[in-house]
Amino acid sequence: MVYRHGPEIAAPAGRHHDVANRASLRRTNLGVILRHLRTVGPRSRTDLADDLGLPKATISNLVNELVERNLVQESHVQRRGSIGRPRQAVELHGRTLCGLGVEISVDYARAIAVDLRGDILLDQHITISPKQDTGLLLDAVADLLTRCLGSMRTAGIDVVGITVAAPGEIDRDAGMVIFAANMGWSHLPVVAGLTARLAPSSPPIALGNDARLGAIAEYAIAEAAGTHDLIYITGDVGIGAGIIINGQPFLGAAGFAGEIGHMPLDLDRQPCACGRRGCWETMVGLAALMRHAADPDDPVRDPDRDLEDRLAEISVRAAAGDERTVAALDRIAHGLGIGIGLLIDVLNPQAVVLGGYFAFLGDHLLDTTRRLVDERVMAPHAGGCQLLVSTLGFTSAARGGAQAALEAVFQDPGSVSAPAA
Amino acid sequence: MVYRHGPEIAAPAGRHHDVANRASLRRTNLGVILRHLRTVGPRSRTDLADDLGLPKATISNLVNELVERNLVQESHVQRRGSIGRPRQAVELHGRTLCGLGVEISVDYARAIAVDLRGDILLDQHITISPKQDTGLLLDAVADLLTRCLGSMRTAGIDVVGITVAAPGEIDRDAGMVIFAANMGWSHLPVVAGLTARLAPSSPPIALGNDARLGAIAEYAIAEAAGTHDLIYITGDVGIGAGIIINGQPFLGAAGFAGEIGHMPLDLDRQPCACGRRGCWETMVGLAALMRHAADPDDPVRDPDRDLEDRLAEISVRAAAGDERTVAALDRIAHGLGIGIGLLIDVLNPQAVVLGGYFAFLGDHLLDTTRRLVDERVMAPHAGGCQLLVSTLGFTSAARGGAQAALEAVFQDPGSVSAPAA
Repeated sequence: MVYRHGPEIAAPAGRHHDVANRASLRRTNLGVILRHLRTVGPRSRTDLADDLGLPKATISNLVNELVERNLVQESHVQRRGSIGRPRQAVELHGRTLCGLGVEISVDYARAIAVDLRGDILLDQHITISPKQDTGLLLDAVADLLTRCLGSMRTAGIDVVGITVAAPGEIDRDAGMVIFAANMGWSHLPVVAGLTARLAPSSPPIALGNDARLGAIAEYAIAEAAGTHDLIYITGDVGIGAGIIINGQPFLGAAGFAGEIGHMPLDLDRQPCACGRRGCWETMVGLAALMRHAADPDDPVRDPDRDLEDRLAEISVRAAAGDERTVAALDRIAHGLGIGIGLLIDVLNPQAVVLGGYFAFLGDHLLDTTRRLVDERVMAPHAGGCQLLVSTLGFTSAARGGAQAALEAVFQDPGSVSAPAA
Repeated sequence: MVYRHGPEIAAPAGRHHDVANRASLRRTNLGVILRHLRTVGPRSRTDLADDLGLPKATISNLVNELVERNLVQESHVQRRGSIGRPRQAVELHGRTLCGLGVEISVDYARAIAVDLRGDILLDQHITISPKQDTGLLLDAVADLLTRCLGSMRTAGIDVVGITVAAPGEIDRDAGMVIFAANMGWSHLPVVAGLTARLAPSSPPIALGNDARLGAIAEYAIAEAAGTHDLIYITGDVGIGAGIIINGQPFLGAAGFAGEIGHMPLDLDRQPCACGRRGCWETMVGLAALMRHAADPDDPVRDPDRDLEDRLAEISVRAAAGDERTVAALDRIAHGLGIGIGLLIDVLNPQAVVLGGYFAFLGDHLLDTTRRLVDERVMAPHAGGCQLLVSTLGFTSAARGGAQAALEAVFQDPGSVSAPAA
């Protein structure tokens, strides 16, 4: 039996509770306070007591425990309209611990560390060759992670967990990519492979789908604008979707939802890495853009060059009115509109967020894509759906991975031990 | 502040509650008991007290009120393994009140009345002509409803509400079909049109999308098999989907989710009633089957004949090995597999349920469709998704409408007045 106050808070309730239940109640409420501070920002103990409907003494007690664990810190807020001295408040503690996310993509691997406040502490990426030997690729990713862990150790910041974002079908429990056509992977044990390459004292590693993790990062931003249902679309060689419904990542019954890259929409029937023809990603993926925009020996198609530099060059050409580039982008924008229209018909979200290279070249794509979406969606006014461009670009998946690694702390702050005095 | 016991029950809790809250608590708990009886079947008062964690006296009190309102009745259950006399129990009362659902489709309108126990009290349908004048069509539907209301009145059964199931984009608040390509409707005020044609004392009318209401009826059956995420696909001239996620109808942010008929999947680029070419329903809808299976003057294509008779004839031809019929069904099954594969990739449900004419001809479609789905879905073993044939056939939408009309009673039994003594 739990005595509830508002949607989340659990208050200790009388004689029927044994000691074990009281302890778990306390852990639950530590998490409620930590998550509340994430949502509302700095807050006085009195305000927290009001917000959450618990006695101030109980709040103080719980807050003190969070302070001891270095998860929140004292701060000061000016009361709105008040001219008196600022009230003492508490807020999430930055720079004491972080989650580390690393995205492995066809062309690059990118690691990002995020602290409890959502601030980025580190952002590093390396270029990798498509289809390189998986052992060498895991070596390179492990090197990147080792460097990042070293930086955090030097800065005195504890890394609570690592989440790897990878494309394709993921078995999260087994830490394995079941199938990722564009990487040429089948049943690759990513978690075991990286764990074996890192120092034994390294934090635990989890694995997730890049699009689903990217959607978590996008949602953290979209939520502020009142958006609770969105589809985030990755833009790389492969195309995937992360779906948020009612503020929660939507994974499907077995964790495979959002596999949109192989919708059979391409009337040109181009061959796809999956072995079929006409998949959406052969129509709008990065390879299609490059194929339409430039000859094979054009430097923008050199996979050894940094992807962002190559995209910047395409953007410059489009802005200068280069006909081939403009036509290529128009073709991509058109294909995007067709597929996004279909997804809006099926899911009727509040927003579709374009990520990856679509975000990078958003200025050149958005008008045409929006027009197509408006024309194609059956519901009036595209069912009220907004078409947005990610402000996170190629960082979404790694950021979302870092946030996912931190979620364990927000769910159970009691799992973090207080630092030795 | 609400004192919670398990997921739903609200128990009266002490001095902070005023009288208004106690009354609303009582109404809430009446609904909790009614819905619990729907899930578990006949149950003694003692068992209800155990199940719901309320004092037996409170349960008895609430149950007595439900008995007074004719919503539950006394019954007897034998205790498992017991040889003693049966215990007195209560169960939902059948045949005292019902919801009435009516589906308006291209070829027919069908009305079904369902009582609290889910038993069908009435099932009547009429053939209507496609594209007939909307005034005449509403006249015919109103006549059907008037006959049904008369039958229920004669039987002494109270009709608590009517839900109309219609294809296309629905504005539920306005009671209006915004757009239904296959009906040739645009901004048709169905609720106002029917209300004006029925007697002033008639029950309130609501409007919903046929696929979404059909999914409610399908879910009532699938739930028993442990399925909580499903896509129900209507099979008629138009094709729509009703989506259930975590046991709840999924409507999308603005109520338009499940519009799957116009996915651009048909490489033949047949013209669609929506004005575009290549929509999925031009590939697998009833019109495509008829076009492939028979010449225009073949009696199976005569829209004035009963649809089920015409489908039965097609089934007989297929069973007899008629080449054209077999090839037509194979083509439909193939197209179904392509579209369903896409939907499974996006939503990863536990089950896809084929309704309407797909269910009627399921024996001839299922093997090929299943093979295509297995080949096409990116996740292994189709992401664990089962492909099922509806056992409700053309009754799903009307049944779901009747169930939706009854839901008001399950949510607030206090809204039903006790019969005059």
